[in-house]
Amino acid sequence: MTVSKPAAGKSISDRKQHPAGVVHESGELAMGELAGLLGYALKRAQLRVFEDFLHCVAPVQLTPAQFSVLLLLDANPGRNQTEIATTLGILRPNFVAMLDALEGRGLCVRTRSPNDRRSHILMLTDKGRATLARAKKLVETQHEARLIELIGEDNRTALLAMLAKIAREF
Amino acid sequence: MTVSKPAAGKSISDRKQHPAGVVHESGELAMGELAGLLGYALKRAQLRVFEDFLHCVAPVQLTPAQFSVLLLLDANPGRNQTEIATTLGILRPNFVAMLDALEGRGLCVRTRSPNDRRSHILMLTDKGRATLARAKKLVETQHEARLIELIGEDNRTALLAMLAKIAREF
Repeated sequence: MTVSKPAAGKSISDRKQHPAGVVHESGELAMGELAGLLGYALKRAQLRVFEDFLHCVAPVQLTPAQFSVLLLLDANPGRNQTEIATTLGILRPNFVAMLDALEGRGLCVRTRSPNDRRSHILMLTDKGRATLARAKKLVETQHEARLIELIGEDNRTALLAMLAKIAREF
Repeated sequence: MTVSKPAAGKSISDRKQHPAGVVHESGELAMGELAGLLGYALKRAQLRVFEDFLHCVAPVQLTPAQFSVLLLLDANPGRNQTEIATTLGILRPNFVAMLDALEGRGLCVRTRSPNDRRSHILMLTDKGRATLARAKKLVETQHEARLIELIGEDNRTALLAMLAKIAREF
């Protein structure tokens, strides 16, 4: 399910059946059982949502992953690198590369823990907080606002609840 | 949102607030606004569903992406490589590598199109059809069955509809 774009609405009703091996007239493909596969539907929706997120947050140049790190640092100042990475489920090498990029832009700093010299404490800088505030505004007023417009506030709440249940209990 | 595992249920109520820079006692982190971010919720649910899919389909060794290719080839025999890749939104280099793997295992074959020598027609082999049938049974009886048990048939239908709407219209 390495997919990147939603398929257009599909209908097999106007597509003739051909014996195997014969080239069809061009036209949309039959999605068959893919249409009912939850993993596939999740992936297509997630890719579309990430694509829109990147577009909306382009003025501050943050990926969804970077945004999630900044949000978590803001809500949990002074926690260490391992705690943040574990909570987000980001693998250590990926997380180190992401922190290098964020620190390189002056958005956060790593300092040695006074309790454990092997551990790095993470903190947002003033610039990080300002960038996060700008990103949050873009997400809220553009990205999330358009999502709510599309599916409605109640459906969005129900969707979030079902997704959280799946992530937590499946 | 390069996440790979769902976070455990989180509560900020029992977490003391500390001034910035002070190390907290260990414990769960406050998820803050991440909990209400649809992109994040989609990604965590999708990763959990893919993880379970891989586990359930392990006897036939198919990834979600490979399964989606086999399903689509089965529903659309004789279509060409570009049509299948475009429908699934898979980038060409990734799709070629995936076909190499599937063909190497004898699950599908590529043949030159009689109409256009630059185009490759894709077909499942008998072994490919048998593997797909086995995979479909595992997905249906284990993976999807447990999902339905978790969220209920009606919620699953509603969830699929909302995800398809987001992928198509957002």
